Amino acid sequence: MEVYFIGTGGGAPSPHRGLPGLLVRREGFSILLDAGEGTQLRMSSGKLSITSLDVIAVTHMHADHVLGIPGIIQTMSLLGRTKKLFLMGPKALRDFLEANFKSTNFYPSFELEYTAQISKPLEVVPFPTCHTIESQGYLVKEPDSLNVDVEALRRTGVTDWRVIRRIKAGEKVNYAGLQLDPADFVKRRRGKVLAYTGDTRPCDQVIERVKGVDLLIHDSTFLEEPKASEYGHSTSRQAAEVASAAAVSRLALIHISSRYVDPFPLLREARRVFRESLLPGDMSKYLL
Amino acid sequence: MEVYFIGTGGGAPSPHRGLPGLLVRREGFSILLDAGEGTQLRMSSGKLSITSLDVIAVTHMHADHVLGIPGIIQTMSLLGRTKKLFLMGPKALRDFLEANFKSTNFYPSFELEYTAQISKPLEVVPFPTCHTIESQGYLVKEPDSLNVDVEALRRTGVTDWRVIRRIKAGEKVNYAGLQLDPADFVKRRRGKVLAYTGDTRPCDQVIERVKGVDLLIHDSTFLEEPKASEYGHSTSRQAAEVASAAAVSRLALIHISSRYVDPFPLLREARRVFRESLLPGDMSKYLL
Repeated sequence: MEVYFIGTGGGAPSPHRGLPGLLVRREGFSILLDAGEGTQLRMSSGKLSITSLDVIAVTHMHADHVLGIPGIIQTMSLLGRTKKLFLMGPKALRDFLEANFKSTNFYPSFELEYTAQISKPLEVVPFPTCHTIESQGYLVKEPDSLNVDVEALRRTGVTDWRVIRRIKAGEKVNYAGLQLDPADFVKRRRGKVLAYTGDTRPCDQVIERVKGVDLLIHDSTFLEEPKASEYGHSTSRQAAEVASAAAVSRLALIHISSRYVDPFPLLREARRVFRESLLPGDMSKYLL
Repeated sequence: MEVYFIGTGGGAPSPHRGLPGLLVRREGFSILLDAGEGTQLRMSSGKLSITSLDVIAVTHMHADHVLGIPGIIQTMSLLGRTKKLFLMGPKALRDFLEANFKSTNFYPSFELEYTAQISKPLEVVPFPTCHTIESQGYLVKEPDSLNVDVEALRRTGVTDWRVIRRIKAGEKVNYAGLQLDPADFVKRRRGKVLAYTGDTRPCDQVIERVKGVDLLIHDSTFLEEPKASEYGHSTSRQAAEVASAAAVSRLALIHISSRYVDPFPLLREARRVFRESLLPGDMSKYLL
């Protein structure tokens, strides 16, 4: 999977960081997680296709996470899209978009389908988070893949690719007097998993659901802010504590408040607790 | 008056031109005419104050002209604004904003007043235009100012500033045996007038209302497009014909379609008809 951090700020936009937007792509399938104002502008400047988006998934109905969606859908229509677009998020998302389309005299040129989760070709599954209003994060999972141990088969004398293909497909094969069982030669490789929290204070249900993911993208609005939890946000240290408790592989700190021009202190603070912390800038890319 | 062309494109945003937004300022009073997505981002990058806006006036309810407004109001609130904001535009503007605020769990920290026109300190008056949906342009007028002909008074022997001030205030004054009539010494200087059409095909009611303005900012979406009028837009030549028929002082071509990377042919075409044509780029400034 490729992850593009389109906007890594939160609240009010700043010249340093745009509003939230994450693009996840794999083999032509693409998912946009949240879309603050300006998301389509940065995507188009960065040559990231808007028209080819398959899913837009929203964590919660605060303006900095959703005001970019109507413009994206309008631009898709202007460019003649016909492919269905899947939408995920709180129930209010549908009201928001429908009221917006009505007020701006607009009818999409393609179908919108509101769905609770996506299963193929990537799994997109929501999980509850702890913000000030209804909110959910998302797990994005690659499918597991099957790898045949070709070397082990060769050692037993099997080199015929037609046979190898049947074993990979899960078939028990009799070949040259041998009983070949897929269980002995096929290994399942777990697909990579990414978790995106959206806005959240540190909470147990997040830790529970993001256990062991390959990349956790967690709210890290503040460096030090006594009211962080009251605002439904996390400090960079708290994000790192969640990453550590959930034993994830890597942590990306996002939703950095516009009050921080230099983000390095937030990253340093997180690394004290969880060494595999990153603080991506706008339009940076991560390969998973 | 100062005019900032915040966004000079139309329809879909392009890397070359942002969506419509014009800032008009005079002596601390500031008016935003239309606000497509990204208007607040360009204003903040260009150090133009969002919080100090007094009026947002909208020409019509198409997305490229209004999707930036909710974010501006949200940012104003985040920054603690308390001053009332005046809003002008079609009736649907209010529904649009109220539905948007409700969906995004937001309540402005200041009063919004919807008004048909503004009279002070600048006049902001709508006029009908010819687009595909309900639409209006705006005249923005400076107040006339009174200038005392101090030299002429001196020639009659009057040099006392207290007397000059009374004459400027419109008072007939007896001074050293002279009957001094303001009509003889005070000249009215007409305030500058700007007209902004928003989206419109060329039409007589626009020509009628923008006669003789100092700056006409007119739809110039296309260079050549047989369907321009059907789309409710103008070509650059048509904009120039309107400017010429209305005998304005200067014409600014805006709402340039994203299909034109090089805008020079549009400007050349307009100048053939009306020599005082300009084609401003994003964030350019004009003094009136």
